[in-house]
Amino acid sequence: MRLAQRIKGLTGGGSDGWDVYYKANAMDAAGHDITHLTIGEHDIGTDRSILDAMHDATLAGITGYSAFNGIKGLRERVAARVTERTGVPTTPDNVLVVPGGQAGLFTAHHAACDEGDTALFIDPYYATYPGTIRGVGARPHAIEARPERAFQPDPAEVAEAAPGARSLLINTPNNPTGVNYTRETLDGLADVCRAHDLWMISDEVYDTQVWDGDHITPRSLEGMADRTLVIGSLSKSHAMTGSRIGWVVGPEKAITHMSNLATHTTYGVAGFIQEAACFALDQGPEFEAKIAEPFERRRDLVLGLLKGQDVVRPIPAAGAMYVMLDIRATGLSGEDFALRLLDQHHVAVMPGESFGKAAAGHVRAALTVEDSRLEAALRQLLETAQSLVAPATV
Amino acid sequence: MRLAQRIKGLTGGGSDGWDVYYKANAMDAAGHDITHLTIGEHDIGTDRSILDAMHDATLAGITGYSAFNGIKGLRERVAARVTERTGVPTTPDNVLVVPGGQAGLFTAHHAACDEGDTALFIDPYYATYPGTIRGVGARPHAIEARPERAFQPDPAEVAEAAPGARSLLINTPNNPTGVNYTRETLDGLADVCRAHDLWMISDEVYDTQVWDGDHITPRSLEGMADRTLVIGSLSKSHAMTGSRIGWVVGPEKAITHMSNLATHTTYGVAGFIQEAACFALDQGPEFEAKIAEPFERRRDLVLGLLKGQDVVRPIPAAGAMYVMLDIRATGLSGEDFALRLLDQHHVAVMPGESFGKAAAGHVRAALTVEDSRLEAALRQLLETAQSLVAPATV
Repeated sequence: MRLAQRIKGLTGGGSDGWDVYYKANAMDAAGHDITHLTIGEHDIGTDRSILDAMHDATLAGITGYSAFNGIKGLRERVAARVTERTGVPTTPDNVLVVPGGQAGLFTAHHAACDEGDTALFIDPYYATYPGTIRGVGARPHAIEARPERAFQPDPAEVAEAAPGARSLLINTPNNPTGVNYTRETLDGLADVCRAHDLWMISDEVYDTQVWDGDHITPRSLEGMADRTLVIGSLSKSHAMTGSRIGWVVGPEKAITHMSNLATHTTYGVAGFIQEAACFALDQGPEFEAKIAEPFERRRDLVLGLLKGQDVVRPIPAAGAMYVMLDIRATGLSGEDFALRLLDQHHVAVMPGESFGKAAAGHVRAALTVEDSRLEAALRQLLETAQSLVAPATV
Repeated sequence: MRLAQRIKGLTGGGSDGWDVYYKANAMDAAGHDITHLTIGEHDIGTDRSILDAMHDATLAGITGYSAFNGIKGLRERVAARVTERTGVPTTPDNVLVVPGGQAGLFTAHHAACDEGDTALFIDPYYATYPGTIRGVGARPHAIEARPERAFQPDPAEVAEAAPGARSLLINTPNNPTGVNYTRETLDGLADVCRAHDLWMISDEVYDTQVWDGDHITPRSLEGMADRTLVIGSLSKSHAMTGSRIGWVVGPEKAITHMSNLATHTTYGVAGFIQEAACFALDQGPEFEAKIAEPFERRRDLVLGLLKGQDVVRPIPAAGAMYVMLDIRATGLSGEDFALRLLDQHHVAVMPGESFGKAAAGHVRAALTVEDSRLEAALRQLLETAQSLVAPATV
């Protein structure tokens, strides 16, 4: 029975390097003690107080259909939060609640792109980006952010690809690189969006995890609030990955249409999860800082371990939950290096090749295991790297 | 800023009659005591035991990312349930877990239709159907199921519309009519699907609420398992509307592609909700019968009240949570009648016109209020109807 071409072509032909991930999981299942530095998920669960708030909401009777676009209390809290953090006046009518950041990415691209339209995104990229764009029938076009620019995208290269495109998807702080886009980068990208009438789709799910510099949203730049759709989520900021709760912030008219779409894609988000989200946001910045703190500490730990050698060169990670490591001095691809590390030391990292082309010859280490285990794994990674280079180079 | 044409054209131009619904809600908010017979949602909440099972799952640490296609335990339970209820051998690889029946409808149409393809559906219809089809870029084509056929669709009329179409969406037991499709109807529709190489998309979310006859899934008919995508949900069967949990059952290859899509639309369903769903399904048929029982009882109550007059003629409701009432003898449209009833007696029903064209001159009463209140409302509805006809007719 014939399936639609669009769904058949959703993925594939893009990134490689996921063999490491699957092999590590298989070794794990076979009883090996693997250190997984692959997935961007906290080593803690959701806080008990949030889980209790969710349960309380169900016992209070919040078990029926909820508002399709999100309950007012949550949209108000998100609006207030965004206003306070970015300075851009934001009302509940600028907010659509969605079941997680990924649903936000899908919804935003659905609003921006018709079938056959071109949607730009930056390589290296989070694994779902091209499939999300294909899922709404659009054509993904990647622009490489190169290691020699510390993975900051070059607005001039984006401008070359922009004519005829409908949207530009960016992510800062960035997964997989840990890089925080500078104001200069963002100003340049905003210029491109204005000049070529592109929607800016800004994935800001790591916005509470910034170690160096400020988090800047492109929505706050001149003339950008009307053309920016921001994806937010409680997954990373509140260790609520499994609750699937996030939002899209954008111009009121776009939110209205996306709310209409949400009625047809998911019929809204569980009301008790929305109540839990309200409770989580009410815990304030201290709570969020506590969730974020281990990743900064571990980033520092990794940078400390890498001092005094230049076989493994860290990309200056300014945020998120990852450190991207340049291992090109070993002469191996990211994938070959990661497979060797997995075989030698049972440490799993993601090859840069699994995030596109631009991060080839790199590996990404997620800072999502306990400090001493992370330190041991990094020492083993260094050992593997150093064994690969001629003594003269070390 | 220009939005995509597809999202702008998602709804509109279709059904009317939602003014009654909005007006009733507004009157309610203004302090009037309205009897709402509009929405298909139980007058009970989700059972405490299910809510506790969900909370227990969160406390057991199930708060992180879940399997994108659904946890194995839930897919196993759904597969076993479908096998037992329908006789069609079904494995966990035939099951995709989705955040509610609506997400299943969207996902199934995404699998069946490319941009510009025609997707058939039956009028009268559940409000989201045409928008769901437009949401995947396809063209909705409605085929009327007429009151003179007791709202059973005519396969011959479907066959006329079938050439070049990709899918046929049906819903039995049916919302809004309460009609259960007969084997003859389903055999005829299956013939059309086979003859014209259509996917059958079968919305069976009311499959535990059948009062007369059996629930027959088209997937069980000869040669149909390979071309049928069944939408299931715990919303109606377990009073879990607010948990947003459902599934699609279909051929393994289609499920694989739809699972891939799910990774890009929602990134899976909250694991703790899936655990609650496992617990709910483990409660067995007695639990489901207890949830369904009030609707059969109320259906009987309504039919009893309507005996001995023929101004308001009930469509023989064999399932679901509704009774469709033919009020054409009053000379009013469904919408005018519903507005008059709301004004006169503060009773809100849905005009047939809000479900398409075929149910014009009808109103749908949801059986979702306590029996004595339902009885009072129906008496008032009868009073309104009888006041509209000439004495000779009564």
